[in-house]
Amino acid sequence: MLVGKINIKEKFSKFSEYWSPRIVAEMNEYQFKLVKIKGEFTWHDHKDTDEVFIIIEGFMSIEFRDGKVDLSEGEMVVVPRGVEHKPFAKDECKIMLIEPRGVVNTGDTGGKLTADSDVWV
Amino acid sequence: MLVGKINIKEKFSKFSEYWSPRIVAEMNEYQFKLVKIKGEFTWHDHKDTDEVFIIIEGFMSIEFRDGKVDLSEGEMVVVPRGVEHKPFAKDECKIMLIEPRGVVNTGDTGGKLTADSDVWV
Repeated sequence: MLVGKINIKEKFSKFSEYWSPRIVAEMNEYQFKLVKIKGEFTWHDHKDTDEVFIIIEGFMSIEFRDGKVDLSEGEMVVVPRGVEHKPFAKDECKIMLIEPRGVVNTGDTGGKLTADSDVWV
Repeated sequence: MLVGKINIKEKFSKFSEYWSPRIVAEMNEYQFKLVKIKGEFTWHDHKDTDEVFIIIEGFMSIEFRDGKVDLSEGEMVVVPRGVEHKPFAKDECKIMLIEPRGVVNTGDTGGKLTADSDVWV
């Protein structure tokens, strides 16, 4: 059959690395990525695109230059293009990212947390 | 502060109509819509875009011309552009749709289940 389903929790069970997005689906030129996060990420922005975070399990915060958003399971946020942000999670948090194909997790900032943007799970 | 969060379950508590998508967020030219469904929808397709279903609560099926996908909480599916499909839910099911701004729920099929495509909640 042409169309298959994706089980989000089952996909999360297939990898353990933090800050390492795994693609699970594509819709037009957009990708759905799962990420496990823990600790502090780097300040960065994405100049050309908005980015959506959906919290699947756990708690995280996103720091902005003008404040902080605390997020828990079932909450989402749209980070507008060009807006600097720094994700943080005290304990492991599982999130879904939605953004155009090819977006790099650290934007133009680079650094050791920069991950391959084209890994499927 | 510039960026605010969206609580998906709280948004679902604000409306009760079935098959009536409510926009909760925009990312670039794409929209995130919440829909409560129950019963049988109409056969339709979207000629110009893929469409993503994420099951937030409950059970639903999507019938395709070549088979059927059963979906439960935490599962998702990408319906490719031009692929005819017919959603169904025996009991109320809460889903999130992701698709470009302006997509009409029944595609070109029309009929009494056609909903306004620009209602926010």
